[in-house]
Formats: sequence, structure tokens, C-alpha cells
Amino acid sequence: MSTESTYRELVSDLIRIDRLSSIFGLLGWDEQVNLPIASASRRAEELAVLSEVIHRESTCGKIGSRLDELEQNADQLEFPERAVVREARRQYDRATKIPAEFVARKTTLASESFHAWVNARENSDFSVSRPHLNTQLQLAREEAGYLGFSGEAAYDYHIDQHAPGLSAAVIEPLFSRLNTATVSLLQQILQSTGKADTSIFKGFPEDTQESFLRAVTGSIGFDYTRGRIDRAVHPFCSGNGADTRMTTRFNVDNPLDSLFSSIHETGHGLYEQGLPMEHHGTSLGTAAGMAVHESQSRLWENQVGRSRPFWEYWEERLRTAFPEQLKQVSSHKLYLAINAVRPNLIRVDADEVTYNLHIIIRFDLERRMFSGDLNVGDLPGAWNEAVRERLGITPETDAEGCLQDVHWSGGAFGYFPSYSLGNMIAAQLWYTLRDDLPGLDDDFRIGKYDRLLAWLRDKVHLQGRQFNALELTRRVTGSELSPDPLIRYLKERYLPLYAG
Amino acid sequence: MSTESTYRELVSDLIRIDRLSSIFGLLGWDEQVNLPIASASRRAEELAVLSEVIHRESTCGKIGSRLDELEQNADQLEFPERAVVREARRQYDRATKIPAEFVARKTTLASESFHAWVNARENSDFSVSRPHLNTQLQLAREEAGYLGFSGEAAYDYHIDQHAPGLSAAVIEPLFSRLNTATVSLLQQILQSTGKADTSIFKGFPEDTQESFLRAVTGSIGFDYTRGRIDRAVHPFCSGNGADTRMTTRFNVDNPLDSLFSSIHETGHGLYEQGLPMEHHGTSLGTAAGMAVHESQSRLWENQVGRSRPFWEYWEERLRTAFPEQLKQVSSHKLYLAINAVRPNLIRVDADEVTYNLHIIIRFDLERRMFSGDLNVGDLPGAWNEAVRERLGITPETDAEGCLQDVHWSGGAFGYFPSYSLGNMIAAQLWYTLRDDLPGLDDDFRIGKYDRLLAWLRDKVHLQGRQFNALELTRRVTGSELSPDPLIRYLKERYLPLYAG
Repeated sequence: MSTESTYRELVSDLIRIDRLSSIFGLLGWDEQVNLPIASASRRAEELAVLSEVIHRESTCGKIGSRLDELEQNADQLEFPERAVVREARRQYDRATKIPAEFVARKTTLASESFHAWVNARENSDFSVSRPHLNTQLQLAREEAGYLGFSGEAAYDYHIDQHAPGLSAAVIEPLFSRLNTATVSLLQQILQSTGKADTSIFKGFPEDTQESFLRAVTGSIGFDYTRGRIDRAVHPFCSGNGADTRMTTRFNVDNPLDSLFSSIHETGHGLYEQGLPMEHHGTSLGTAAGMAVHESQSRLWENQVGRSRPFWEYWEERLRTAFPEQLKQVSSHKLYLAINAVRPNLIRVDADEVTYNLHIIIRFDLERRMFSGDLNVGDLPGAWNEAVRERLGITPETDAEGCLQDVHWSGGAFGYFPSYSLGNMIAAQLWYTLRDDLPGLDDDFRIGKYDRLLAWLRDKVHLQGRQFNALELTRRVTGSELSPDPLIRYLKERYLPLYAG
Repeated sequence: MSTESTYRELVSDLIRIDRLSSIFGLLGWDEQVNLPIASASRRAEELAVLSEVIHRESTCGKIGSRLDELEQNADQLEFPERAVVREARRQYDRATKIPAEFVARKTTLASESFHAWVNARENSDFSVSRPHLNTQLQLAREEAGYLGFSGEAAYDYHIDQHAPGLSAAVIEPLFSRLNTATVSLLQQILQSTGKADTSIFKGFPEDTQESFLRAVTGSIGFDYTRGRIDRAVHPFCSGNGADTRMTTRFNVDNPLDSLFSSIHETGHGLYEQGLPMEHHGTSLGTAAGMAVHESQSRLWENQVGRSRPFWEYWEERLRTAFPEQLKQVSSHKLYLAINAVRPNLIRVDADEVTYNLHIIIRFDLERRMFSGDLNVGDLPGAWNEAVRERLGITPETDAEGCLQDVHWSGGAFGYFPSYSLGNMIAAQLWYTLRDDLPGLDDDFRIGKYDRLLAWLRDKVHLQGRQFNALELTRRVTGSELSPDPLIRYLKERYLPLYAG
């Protein structure tokens, strides 16, 4: 059989697995958006059966032999095809080297651990979560071991799962510079006289909020003919570029929450919708990882969505939608509320300045747990110390401390760094694209985003997973990934505002 | 291996297939309720991959050998277990005897045929549909042939697919009596002075309609903790008893349409929710077929939902929900509108008296097409003649004649009879249960349906598919299936109303 036809058969295998995975994803979306309360256990059974099927397809020996053959004849493949083979190998190794027994054990323990976390958080009792967290950490090490990552490298394995190409050693100096600059910027902001007030909003009907956010997200480019937005407890973006499913939630006394979380999810959605459709299912049609994904959501949410030119267009429309509710709110107050900065104990409620501090804290603690420097039992103290040091406030309970996020209890280690890596990439792309697209602010002032979207499509979305986050950043911006553009952006955005 | 453990393994195979089929069903529901307009081709790909998986699971040789072994040792099995093996054999034979090549060909042609039908109906041009209808008929014969049904028996195969145990020879005399009695009853109604007017409704807001129908369907017993109702172009009930998904649609000038279609779908939903949960996936937890299913939807919609005692409770609540809209509508007019009888060319808009005539026409034409008595090319003329003869009106176009239903173009032959068989079973159950449950009308007068639902649970729902429609009717009512109770019910319901 020719290399070409082997490649075609590999692609066909990958597409079949991708379509089954999409179905799995839809079941997850449905669970969050639609599932009746007493139907959860049946859904769990369905997911278990479908997982088994996907695992069987993913570990099929034919894929292994196709990969062997293609790797031996790699010189006959073009670069994009080699990128497909490389990523397929990565997935295949992960699927075949991790024993089914381990996957089953991990699934069971994750469920127990999740319920213990819910209970622990409700009662703010870390001792309930502690043994499960220990088990999750052991499992995470065991999993990394199957793929050949032992000792401290186990953490690198998990980072790489979410942000391919990244490692603790690469991240540490970047986060360290970002930490120092952010702490200093935060001091300046807190000492300034400008004060944002987000309690100025009252009684914004949900339906009107929804119409408004649909207008905004549609206008920035989300294609509602192949995607939708629904209500769920937590905002997220799932599905794929052919059928993108976003969610949001509404608070009648905080219209900015649903609006900005929807712009954020739209950033994710635009990335998925911009991946080359004809390559969906292979790495050429797959996002480059969570860090790059987060760069897209953050760029639209923050660099674009919180900018003055953006609001020069939308403020009038917001006032038309909510004339009574905004009568007493001046333009200045509105813009300050949109760009409020205030140290907060809870990551998901953090503003864009302090957000990275939350992430840096988690990265540092994760790294120390993997290296053995930090025992799980000492986590609450270490957490509170780290928060006090950076944010100047201290959690009164573990519920607003180390129990606030589900990630670790769900076994998701190495996920957090992607958020701040995404923020760094977003800012770095931002300065490059502003050089490439002069007059972009004028576009925003008339509600036009097509030049920006076309640029992102070309430079990021259409690249799929050919390059990892570091390679992609270097190719597009001409520089290595750095925290400096993010630091510059935060200063340029927030210092004038809070000095004013 | 013991017979007992072989049986357990068979059940585990069947449950796995059932859960995958449930996922397939959810994708179908999502397609009708949520799917963005440009996402259809991706969904088709997902369904194709999942179909392949389900087909592979369903034709797995291990199931065949387990069935062989269990059939040889049938004496070691209890009756319910034998019912499970019997139905599993039926499914397995169908899955293995029909070649994959045929299934693929049928799927492709069904899609072409469907699009031709949409086009033909839009332009009322039968010639567009004719060749496809011919192909569908040939395919239907071919499929029946694989299972050993040739010649006229091919039609029986298709009837049996939807209503196990039924055949054209059984149905023909039942429908013949029903036809004669209905035509005569219709004459009496049309000659009466009582006239229903359904154009008395204007401006019923959709949201209030929805609240009202949720109150009604919840009160008759639909369990919304394991089911939901959404909006779709056509009302239907999908899913299963652990997660039942109904749909409805709203017309602001016809609140009865969404209300009665929702009560109808609730009847289906109650049946699914009443199947024994611990047996979901085997025939013990599966509905007895479409005819029995339709008996449940019709009984709640018609025998219960259009009755005076039912409305003695709900009329006041309807008026509270729509005070202005109903101010000019007297109780008598409302009840007449609920029980309007008027010959209509379109089956789905037909009332419960004339509905069966629509079905009898289709049964007769299907039978003649399978026997070769009727060429597809002669269908429009034969259709119009049959309609004129029974309903006294004639379609002006084929769009309101033989092109109105999608069934045949989709290859669904033998499906129509289930609707009227269901009506017959519903009426036959109705008289039995009224004997068993004295004072039932008083229950309805205070909005109570628990005794009725418990009776249906016990006699019908909990029986699963142990018995076919004929056996079940005989066991529950003590009589053979007959059109007489339905004829009696229609006379008792409509003659006083239209003589009044």
C-alpha cells in the first residue's frame, strides 16, 4: 500500500474518532443545558458505553501500524501531513499506553473526589477533600509515568496535555516577571483616586440582556447558523466549528457578567469556527491547545471588549436597550465598571489585572505538590499565604481559598497555567495585529470587526495545530512568548483610567 | 457456561446497544430542537458513524451464539426471560439478515427520496416523487425478502415492524367495520344542527399557553424530573423513560393545537416513563409497539382530554390564564371547539372521528401497492377517489392529497395502521378501566388522574413487550381486539353533542 493511501486511511480513522468524540461532547453540553434532574444516572451510563467505544476505536491496532508506516516514510509527507501524524501518534500513545484498568479506576475516583469536593466546599472543610486530593495527585503521577514522565517531569506531562509544547521550566520565568509587574501595577491602581463601582446596576431583564449579547456576539462574527448560545449554570463553549455550543447565565443586577462571559465564549467559538472545516478531525483542523484557545477568548473579551473604541459604538445601544436602568449611570462610571479592578478571593470573579495572580498562585502550588515540596495537607496554609502576599487579602475559609476550584479534585492538574499563557499570547498578538492593521480603533468605533477577525483567522485559526503555542507565537509575532506585551497592555489600559 | 450466566451476558449486550441507540435518539431530538441550520451535514456524519457502531454491536457473533444457546435451553428460562430472548432474536435476525450494502443503499435513497418529496409537495407535482416512491416500494419488498416475507406477505413484514403481531389479514376486517360505522356516524354529525367553530380563538400568548400545558401535562402525571418539553416544528415524543423528550409548537390563534398535541405526546411519555426502569434495554422494558403506544397517547388526548369531566376542572383554569381572550367564548362553544368534527383533507389536522378514515385510506392503498393491484403511477387518482368516497371532499392538488405525508417517501410502509389500531385499543381499554375504576369522572372533576395512571401502569406500561398488541388487549380487556368499543365511544361522545 502506498504512503499516500495509508495516510488517507489514517485520516479516515481519525475523523471517525473525532465524530464520536463530538457526540460525546454534545452529550456533555446537553447534560449542562437540558438534562432533567433525575436523568443523570442514565446519562452517565450512556457516556460510559460511548467512552468504551471511543477507547476501542482509538486503540485500534490498525492505527498503530499506519502510524509506524507513515513515520518510517515521513520523508514522503509534506509538513502539514507530518503534523497530522505527529499529533495522531501523541493521541494513540496516550490511548494505548494508559491501561484501561487505570482509566476505569481514575473515572471512579474522580466521581468520588468530585462529590467529596462539593461536600468539602459547602462545609468549608478541607479534611474531607484532602485524602481525595492526595489520591488525585498519585493518579496524576501514575498517568504521567505510563507516558514516561517521572518525578517532577510528571507536572510537565500534565501541562503539555492542555498546552502542547509548554513546561514548568518555560513557564516559571515568564510568570515570575508577570507576578512582579502585576503586584506593582495593582499597588498603583489601589492607591489611585479612581474607584470603580459595579453595584450601580439594578433590574436588567434577562430577555433584553440576551438580545443585547446576541447582537454583540453576532456582530463580532459568531456565526449563529452553525452555533448557538443557551443558558447554563456556568458559561462555557463546547462543540466544534460545525456546531458550536456556547452557554451563558444571567444576573439581573449585573448585565456585564453575561455580556463579557459571552464575548469570552464567543472568542473560543470564533476560533473553533475558524479552524479549517475540511480538516476537522485531524490536527490541521484542531485548536493548538488551551493556551492559544484562551488567547482568543481573552483578546475579544479584554483587548477588544473592554476598550474605549468598542464602547464608543455599543454604549448608545446599551442605553437604548436599558434606558431606565442606565439613566443615572454616567459614561465614565459605566466605563470604570467595565474595567473595575479590585482584589478578590475568587478566581472566576477576578478582573483582568488580578486574574493572573490567581493563576500564578495555582501554578506555584501545583509545581510544589508535584515536586514533593508541598504536602497536600499543608495546602490551605500555603494557599492563604500566597494570596495574602500577592493580593493583600486573606481567605477566611478554605471554601474561598483552596477549595474554590474543582480542577484538582477532578484530577485536572496543569490546566491553570493556560489561562495566563493565553492572556500573554493575546497581548502579544494584540500589538502585532495593531501594527498590521492601522486604524483598527476606527473600525471598532463603527462596530466593524471583520479586518480583525480576518487577521486572526489567517494567522491563528487556519493554522490548526500545526504549531504549538510557543511556535505559533514566534511565527506570528516574530518574538518569543513574553509577559512584556501583557504588562504593557495592562499599564496602558489601567493606569490612565485609575490616574484619571 | 450456565444458561443463567449466558442470559445475563445477553442482557448486558442488549443494554449496551440500547444505550447507544438512546444516544442516537438524543442526536435526533437535538436535530429537531436545537441544531443550527448550517450544522446539518456534520450531524449527518455523526449519525452515520454512530449507526455503523450500533450495527456492529447489534450483529456481533457473540449475541448470535448466546441466542442459539438460550433457545436450546428455553425450558430453563422463565416466561419473561423467554420474551427477552424472543425479541432479541427478532432484532438480531433483522440486523444480520439485512445486508449492510442494502442498509447503506436504503439510507442514500431515503435521503434523495425525502428531498424529492419536499420538492414535489411544494410544487404539488407528483411526477417528481413517483420514481422515488417506486424505488421505496421495491426496497421495502427487498427488505421483507431478506427476512423471508415475499409477495403480499412483504406488507405484513412492515406492519409487524411497527405493530408486532399484526398483519393485513387481521387488520382488514377490523378496519372495514370501523369504516362503515364511521362514514355513517359522520353523516349523522354533518346533518346535525350543532356546529363547532374553531375560529373563535385569537391572541393567546405562547408563554401563557406553555405554562398552561405544563400545568395540565404535569398534573396528569408526566414526570418533569426525568423529561422535558421543548419547541419544534412538529410535536413528537422521543427519548426513553429515564429521559423523555417531548416537543410542541404554538399557534397564537389556536391554543387547542399545542394543548392537545402536548397531552397526546404526554400519553406517549407516560408509557415510556411507566416501563419498568430496571428492564430498560430488553423487551421487558420496551413498549409493545406503535399500536399500543398510540393507544396511550390517544386515550389521554381523546377519552380523557376531550371529556366533559376533564373540562369541568380545567375550563376555569384556562379562563384564568386567558381572561380577555375567552370572555366572548361560552362554555358550550369552547367544548364544541374541543370536539369539533369537520371533514378535512389533511390527516394531521383531522378530528378524532374522521382521523380513522384517513388511516383506512392509507392502509387500503398500501396493501394494494404491495399486492400489485395499484401502480404507483395511479396513486393520485386512487387517493382522491378514496377520499371523496369517505369524506365527501376532494383534494384539489396532490399536495393536499397523496403527497401530504412523508411516510412513504421515507420508506415507512405499514406504519399508518398503528394509529387507528391505537384508537381501537384505547377505546377498548377505556371501557374496561371504567368498569374497574368506578367514579373516574369524579376524579377528573377534581383534576385527579392517579387511579387512571396506576391502572395503565399496571395493565399496560409495566408489561413491557412481553405481549404483542393483540395478546395484551385480550389479557387486559378479556376480549379480542375489536373496533366496536371505538365505534361505541365515538357515538357516545359525539351524537349527544351534535344532536344538542
